[in-house]
Amino acid sequence: MSTHFTTRLHAAIKQKKTPALVGIDPRFEFLPDELQDKAISSGKDPWSAKAKAFAEFGCRLIDVIAPLVPAVKPQAAFFEELGHAGTTALAEVMQHARKSGLIVICDGKRGDIGSTAEAYARAYLAGADPSAAPWGADCLTVNPYLGADTLEPFVKVCQERGAGIYVLVRTSNPGSGEFQDRKSDGKKLFEHVAKVVEDLAQRTSENDWGAVGAVVGATYPEELEQLRTAMPHTPLLVPGYGSQGGTAADVAAAFSSDGLGAVVNSSRGINFAFRSDKYKDQFAPHEWEQAIEQATHDMIADLAQHTPAGKLQ
Amino acid sequence: MSTHFTTRLHAAIKQKKTPALVGIDPRFEFLPDELQDKAISSGKDPWSAKAKAFAEFGCRLIDVIAPLVPAVKPQAAFFEELGHAGTTALAEVMQHARKSGLIVICDGKRGDIGSTAEAYARAYLAGADPSAAPWGADCLTVNPYLGADTLEPFVKVCQERGAGIYVLVRTSNPGSGEFQDRKSDGKKLFEHVAKVVEDLAQRTSENDWGAVGAVVGATYPEELEQLRTAMPHTPLLVPGYGSQGGTAADVAAAFSSDGLGAVVNSSRGINFAFRSDKYKDQFAPHEWEQAIEQATHDMIADLAQHTPAGKLQ
Repeated sequence: MSTHFTTRLHAAIKQKKTPALVGIDPRFEFLPDELQDKAISSGKDPWSAKAKAFAEFGCRLIDVIAPLVPAVKPQAAFFEELGHAGTTALAEVMQHARKSGLIVICDGKRGDIGSTAEAYARAYLAGADPSAAPWGADCLTVNPYLGADTLEPFVKVCQERGAGIYVLVRTSNPGSGEFQDRKSDGKKLFEHVAKVVEDLAQRTSENDWGAVGAVVGATYPEELEQLRTAMPHTPLLVPGYGSQGGTAADVAAAFSSDGLGAVVNSSRGINFAFRSDKYKDQFAPHEWEQAIEQATHDMIADLAQHTPAGKLQ
Repeated sequence: MSTHFTTRLHAAIKQKKTPALVGIDPRFEFLPDELQDKAISSGKDPWSAKAKAFAEFGCRLIDVIAPLVPAVKPQAAFFEELGHAGTTALAEVMQHARKSGLIVICDGKRGDIGSTAEAYARAYLAGADPSAAPWGADCLTVNPYLGADTLEPFVKVCQERGAGIYVLVRTSNPGSGEFQDRKSDGKKLFEHVAKVVEDLAQRTSENDWGAVGAVVGATYPEELEQLRTAMPHTPLLVPGYGSQGGTAADVAAAFSSDGLGAVVNSSRGINFAFRSDKYKDQFAPHEWEQAIEQATHDMIADLAQHTPAGKLQ
């Protein structure tokens, strides 16, 4: 069996019949009351107590969604906010996700030069064998500002280990165009970045898809359509669905006609479904896992109905 | 006493009479033999054993240089490469640096959107009170690709806590121009980023200097001179001196005429001085701390002789 990242990702997508990606974005004040109460009464220092709650929440979330989706995307920042206790919880959550058969995309948006970039790559990109790197991820998000030469150390480790990266191309925030839309030589900056990423995707391709992907926000559907065409070998990671305002119709253009080539992420909409207007009357506070499960089913159905991902069913 | 980041940094620079910044970039294979041997024979798992060696190396390095320089810049990537044991060592090293009276600039090159950016800010930016954030740094390096709106959460925490950020403007790697030099509306991308950073520096200024600074590589002396003029309120962090090829003459333009407004970083040239051709005949392997001390004195003298930092003496 191939160890190539996107080949493995696509196998998982076909098995689960959905490209739904669940972000793991714990925020202490949004956690289920029972986990907050346990942390507060634990007597531990606040950072350690919250980190333990993050680990329990992340692992229980994984237990609910592992049968349903192909991959998870833990957000490093929320774990790092709790110091080294938080990063220990991040490692625990990522290991639990791998053991549960999920593809793990660590959302760290790392980037640096030369040997420093290589250190980030070796830290996070375990690839096919979870024990090959201490953080054990299949894949990492990477920032391209420093230049294409700084992506090379990541690509090298991807090829050695069957890992992947998603390079930020067009981000989902309101101000993403400020630098990313600046036009030179007839193209916007994000299009120049996209060209570099597509070249790397071609170079690392297997079964037509590269191990180097691109992050393109669901909040910019026109750019998403344009980039899918311009980057035929590049798998896309599409954030911004759900809480950030992107709809299934907005992300439809991210896919190739067979429903592959993209994963669509929802974080808050799944993680804290039990606090949302949509689900909070349907589920009691202690039924937070059932609310998460229902929200995941609803996202999967929404993507199946309105995008080529329906062909996977 | 003011808690403003750059006011505190400048006080430290005046006290130590130098703008020399020492990077803390541990690499296991370059550590002193005694620390490598101790780790290998410790019986711990390799990542924990190496992390313990990183913590000891970092703390002993700090003990040597704390009387000599105003600030240190730990490189997060090399610690993260060892997993959560490594990040625990990073926290220990940063706490030891703060206790030793040093300004701590965590080199993490973080960047994300909205509440995620705020999580990174709250994680790293302790500012004036080291206990205000789990990682306890005064300052963090930040990547601007996602847009100016994503810098705001960092600026907010800087102002609340007397912390600082250095935003990547022109990096020191050979390929930094690929995206950073792209020209739109008559200016290169790094100049557009520089304008945003200078505006934030003005907004956060005290004693003429902002709490928002810029990273500009020593390997591009012309851009350094141009940016010093274009960014009169922006403190600069200049990497690339020493091992990367930048000379004291190359960095002279980074300073204002009183020798303030910039810190110049050396990492490998100081950390592993005892392995360099310049010092290895002068010091025995077990005299690695003396080699580090001599290399630091030599860097301070070099900057004093060839840059306006000489006015601090």
